[in-house]
Amino acid sequence: MGPHPAVAAIRLAVRRVLHDVLTEHTETHEHAARLERTLSHAAAAPSGSHLPGRSALPADEPLVLVACSGGADSMALASALAFEARKLSVRAGGVTVDHGLQDGSDLRAAEVAARLGSLGLDPVESITVRVGREGGPEAAARDARYAALDDAAERHGAAAVLLGHTRDDQAETVLLGLARGSGTRSLSGMAAVSGAAGRYRRPFLQLDRQTARKACMVQSLPVWDDPHNADPAYTRSRLRHEGLPALEKALGKGVVEALARTAQLSRDDANALDTWAADADASVRDDSGRLECAKLYALPPAVRRRVLRRAVIEAGAPAGSLFARHVEEVDRLITGWRGQGAINLPGRVEARRQGGRLVIRQG
Amino acid sequence: MGPHPAVAAIRLAVRRVLHDVLTEHTETHEHAARLERTLSHAAAAPSGSHLPGRSALPADEPLVLVACSGGADSMALASALAFEARKLSVRAGGVTVDHGLQDGSDLRAAEVAARLGSLGLDPVESITVRVGREGGPEAAARDARYAALDDAAERHGAAAVLLGHTRDDQAETVLLGLARGSGTRSLSGMAAVSGAAGRYRRPFLQLDRQTARKACMVQSLPVWDDPHNADPAYTRSRLRHEGLPALEKALGKGVVEALARTAQLSRDDANALDTWAADADASVRDDSGRLECAKLYALPPAVRRRVLRRAVIEAGAPAGSLFARHVEEVDRLITGWRGQGAINLPGRVEARRQGGRLVIRQG
Repeated sequence: MGPHPAVAAIRLAVRRVLHDVLTEHTETHEHAARLERTLSHAAAAPSGSHLPGRSALPADEPLVLVACSGGADSMALASALAFEARKLSVRAGGVTVDHGLQDGSDLRAAEVAARLGSLGLDPVESITVRVGREGGPEAAARDARYAALDDAAERHGAAAVLLGHTRDDQAETVLLGLARGSGTRSLSGMAAVSGAAGRYRRPFLQLDRQTARKACMVQSLPVWDDPHNADPAYTRSRLRHEGLPALEKALGKGVVEALARTAQLSRDDANALDTWAADADASVRDDSGRLECAKLYALPPAVRRRVLRRAVIEAGAPAGSLFARHVEEVDRLITGWRGQGAINLPGRVEARRQGGRLVIRQG
Repeated sequence: MGPHPAVAAIRLAVRRVLHDVLTEHTETHEHAARLERTLSHAAAAPSGSHLPGRSALPADEPLVLVACSGGADSMALASALAFEARKLSVRAGGVTVDHGLQDGSDLRAAEVAARLGSLGLDPVESITVRVGREGGPEAAARDARYAALDDAAERHGAAAVLLGHTRDDQAETVLLGLARGSGTRSLSGMAAVSGAAGRYRRPFLQLDRQTARKACMVQSLPVWDDPHNADPAYTRSRLRHEGLPALEKALGKGVVEALARTAQLSRDDANALDTWAADADASVRDDSGRLECAKLYALPPAVRRRVLRRAVIEAGAPAGSLFARHVEEVDRLITGWRGQGAINLPGRVEARRQGGRLVIRQG
């Protein structure tokens, strides 16, 4: 008798990602080996031991870490990683992050680490972080968490870090992006592969939360429910417990899947348009590199706004503070020119039209 | 003392659209006059009366019609059109459509027509339509309504037909598109200008429903609330009364505005990508016009999928039945080729890979 369908589903999702990681790892190693042979040959040296950065290469069996909060999604992920890693040439470890935001969070982190160890993961680490305040409580906790995960991945030479985000998380992320009203990029949710050198992988992005819960249940894995997830003070929690259910009631059960598909399609669209804007950038500048209004005017609005956004960020505006309405205002210097003055943008950047050119610079 | 802010807002919105219509009308007439002079001159004829289609040109003062259900949005629109038309060189008329779906709908239509007449609109017409069944009750009613409006516009030689859709309707339309999960185009909502030769105009697309209601109230305009709008059997009604309010509660009051902005940004993005796909189409075909898989593979996924979609529709698939998942399956003939067989698509269209070419044809 095979495993329960939910367990089969989480294992399949992890197996696919491990295959990708292994393929890339092998390619990297073959490339490094080729490079080493070439350099050794060129230098006629007896060994490649002088190759720069050689010691930073991971051991032959790549290490894959799972980031685990102790919740159902990431516990299911950890169990599937432990199972699949044994069948492939992969070492599997786990990291849990103690945000120190609740009494007893240190004890809970130790407990999660113990559970990861009992799944057979090794190394296992519990990392305590200090959460700052920048960008609000959710953003600050996320920043601290990823910094800790980055650090752990570096220290252990991990080839990848798996994250337990599910299709439901993806749907929520798309709705949060929708609420910003910043267009296609903000609708593209979380990427299946992200971070430096594609370090972060999200195997469950097409799997629903219910399957992860079920997989924990049938494997008798104890899970911990973060009270923050049900706290209506958090936007995501309100979305999860009120917003999305109401939307499903109005639009039907397929909403979560539709939102997840929207994320993928939006990501591809945003990538294609970013490429176009990068290509167009050179073609709309004069010999001294200044943006020419007439040439900008001739671009499709979607491309022109991306060129403008790039230019404003390049001049020093922080990307996170630059909203669609800022870019629209700059765009009106091109499309609705009636002698308006300089436009003030985040990061003390200023945009003005001067002699048919757009001048964007930091004040 | 000026008008109430709500009345000022609806009038401003209509004034802007009438200016656009007048400008285009004048340009068309000047163009026609130039054309006539050129032809007269070339033919050395004494008059231009032989110019084809001359009798179809509207009279010098363009006629603008308002489509009015008797509800608050379109009654506000009718009142603003009547007011603004008097100040500009525009004739203003009104049309109401009796869908015949409720007892007494004919009496109500007559009442709405009388109200439009008392606003000073002329001509005013009530048109009875037969609603079919195709595509469900909402789609069938819409199809019948637009056919009637098209016909009225033709008969009266109207330069434009104004529709009362507000920013709230736009937000609902975006969410309905989101539920389809078909990507950027389905998120682009309703256009400010649409239909043959840009006949339909939506002056209230950036105005909220509350403003329209307020404008009716302060002008003591009686309005009629369509019971369908509150009937939970209709998806849009559930969205309006349950889905959107829950989303606003979770994400904040700016959701409607964010959704409306998403519509505009998505529309621009979809247009730009459609242009790219149309340009790319020729470059991915061999000498005999067949799609080459290797060249398709090299395109960005967002562009490739649009090229494929175009090809499938060109082969005879009805655009409305062709979903993202169909196109994804065709795409896998390019990106995930493992010898799979022919793919069956709507409209008896079939796609198969053959000798490095994609063959898409109707069976």
